[in-house]
Amino acid sequence: MGGTPPRSPLAPASFPDLPVIGGVEFATIGAGVKYAGRKDVMLARLAPGTAIAGVFTRSATRSAPVLDCQSKIGGDSTGAAAIVVNSGNANAFTGRNGVEATKAVTNAAAKALGIEESRVFTSSTGVIGEPLPHDRITAKLEELAGSLSADGIADAAAAIMTTDTYPKGAAAEVQVDGQTVRIAGIAKGSGMIAPDMATMLVYIFTDAAIDQPVLQDMVSAATDLTFNCITVDSDTSTSDSLICAATGASGIRVTEANTAFIDALRGLMLDLAHQVVRDGEGATKFVEIHVTGAHSDADARTHALSIANSPLVKTAIAGEDPNWGRIVMAIGKSGAAADRDLISIWFGDVLVADKGWRAPSYKEEDGAAHMTGDKIDIRVDLGLGGGTATVWTCDLTHGYISINADYRS
Amino acid sequence: MGGTPPRSPLAPASFPDLPVIGGVEFATIGAGVKYAGRKDVMLARLAPGTAIAGVFTRSATRSAPVLDCQSKIGGDSTGAAAIVVNSGNANAFTGRNGVEATKAVTNAAAKALGIEESRVFTSSTGVIGEPLPHDRITAKLEELAGSLSADGIADAAAAIMTTDTYPKGAAAEVQVDGQTVRIAGIAKGSGMIAPDMATMLVYIFTDAAIDQPVLQDMVSAATDLTFNCITVDSDTSTSDSLICAATGASGIRVTEANTAFIDALRGLMLDLAHQVVRDGEGATKFVEIHVTGAHSDADARTHALSIANSPLVKTAIAGEDPNWGRIVMAIGKSGAAADRDLISIWFGDVLVADKGWRAPSYKEEDGAAHMTGDKIDIRVDLGLGGGTATVWTCDLTHGYISINADYRS
Repeated sequence: MGGTPPRSPLAPASFPDLPVIGGVEFATIGAGVKYAGRKDVMLARLAPGTAIAGVFTRSATRSAPVLDCQSKIGGDSTGAAAIVVNSGNANAFTGRNGVEATKAVTNAAAKALGIEESRVFTSSTGVIGEPLPHDRITAKLEELAGSLSADGIADAAAAIMTTDTYPKGAAAEVQVDGQTVRIAGIAKGSGMIAPDMATMLVYIFTDAAIDQPVLQDMVSAATDLTFNCITVDSDTSTSDSLICAATGASGIRVTEANTAFIDALRGLMLDLAHQVVRDGEGATKFVEIHVTGAHSDADARTHALSIANSPLVKTAIAGEDPNWGRIVMAIGKSGAAADRDLISIWFGDVLVADKGWRAPSYKEEDGAAHMTGDKIDIRVDLGLGGGTATVWTCDLTHGYISINADYRS
Repeated sequence: MGGTPPRSPLAPASFPDLPVIGGVEFATIGAGVKYAGRKDVMLARLAPGTAIAGVFTRSATRSAPVLDCQSKIGGDSTGAAAIVVNSGNANAFTGRNGVEATKAVTNAAAKALGIEESRVFTSSTGVIGEPLPHDRITAKLEELAGSLSADGIADAAAAIMTTDTYPKGAAAEVQVDGQTVRIAGIAKGSGMIAPDMATMLVYIFTDAAIDQPVLQDMVSAATDLTFNCITVDSDTSTSDSLICAATGASGIRVTEANTAFIDALRGLMLDLAHQVVRDGEGATKFVEIHVTGAHSDADARTHALSIANSPLVKTAIAGEDPNWGRIVMAIGKSGAAADRDLISIWFGDVLVADKGWRAPSYKEEDGAAHMTGDKIDIRVDLGLGGGTATVWTCDLTHGYISINADYRS
């Protein structure tokens, strides 16, 4: 990788001030997995009794750490737990070596923290197909375990970055019976981003006390409306992982009936998902695509993703070109039901196409004006039924090509 | 559109010398549909009795000319026929106006040539969603009809171009009972290219005498192995059309039993399909992806297209980076069956990955050496069964972004 790409023009002004979550401590270190001169491993220690839920990539070639995590989610929650993440190497498609590398890291973390190996969850992100130099990580675990701190979450967000141009964090507070429950989350991801899951790593921590099956249901449902509704380049990674840990340190119990907590968790996840899109490789525009009037929500989603993943739509947006013909094309090719002569399209508030052809009121300069902003809103009504969906993406620019034609060499 | 993009580095040295096909005459003219200073309309007149077969886009938003052609294929073949094609405007998503524009062109062509309107086939290619200025075309039809010539096929190939950087043609000869049957074809297309159908227009002419249903079966079968196996950017147009006309002027009858003719037709179509990929917008590498060992041919095709359409694979190729991890990723996300630990991958003759991880014999410099060529061969064996597929694509470069972020403005 050549020099660091510049910070995305769509980045938030600064990393948010994340609250300390009782029951979680962080440590980070530079282990030289691939990158020199930066921190590339993070350790999180979770208090005994922490419930841990997870959502993972559905890729048929998912990595050894993903398979290891999946086998551990839902196990006994009695003891303390840990999350170990390295950037620079995905430990994916590394065969038996990959399984052994994962085992070496989980074993070393368990020893360093004095916990059960079945409670150690690891993620690896970066290049696929190269053996993970796991000894560089295991050599640092004692030092990491000795430097844990309750306020290290910002450093953790930075340590898990690969081609990200900024660290991603979000927080929420929820009042439960007059007491405050806190949630904080971090994420990484900027390319190889597509649903099921978007290619990324996400770690969310709350001091609420939540039974593991309840937490799993909450996280799975929220993922479908957040991380599974974003796409940068239609490519799905082998390593996508979301882990949510509820430490219970607040002493406040949250159940499946607490809609305020569920909404707050989903809002936090949507915030992180949008931050990933805003860091889409080469992105200069944040794009929301809202489809209504489809036969079903599933059809609406198929159309929305076909638009969001179309290279011709994405390059038109990059060029600030209100080329609504390419949106028609993307609807036509999606495979979901559409009737050409019922389709209407808006750019922002501007009605562009009305029931199958250019709206009489439409002026190209109005569409062009909307495209000059850095938030693009595309709305499509299919005129067929009540199905709706919203997805988010970014434009496709020279920056994407520069980053990805030169990532590994 | 700014200046004309430079001729693709993958273009053939020159336009081939196409034979005159008895029973077909061509004329071209500059009608100013969109482009100034170039020919943008072509007319082909086909002798009475010509059998006409067609394959068209499956887009749900297909254009008025496509729908009109589809309704006419398979009709009575007694009278003379015509093909009228304009570039610059696709007459797609133009509502009632689009139907009227198509009707105006077919009507004017029928009058100018003294033939039935049911024997006039039209195609329009270019911008979607803008009303076709059909009067500019109809105003020229008498002049076109007056300038028909048997050797005008090369001009026709040029007149149908949009973002193409070179005209595309191919020819074949077949011996039938000691006599020669000729086939000549032209095509346009360079972006919005994906299967079902690849986004393009293709016109093929033969002097063989073939019954229409037989010709249709031949063309449909060959399309599945040629134009439906190429992709530039995964985008499918609203206008894709392939029309094949058998004039019978040679007096030589060809039936479904003539495998030499079928092979020659398929070979010619594959040649044209490859020429379209070689003119892929911004392309610098021609890529063949061959998948073996899948559960089924359909699964092999799904994997091959997932690899061919992956922006991360295509940018890696642009960067001459032997990043086989991205191929693993594309297999994993395709949805078709794969077992991570059985996958093998080759770049050219170089075994890169062997049954799930990097081949012990693999040296990065060997993979890198293959990537420096302008023909890239990627072979994947899934180790599951006997399914195979081959697809062709190109790399994704800064050139694609430049062309498509600035096409319409």
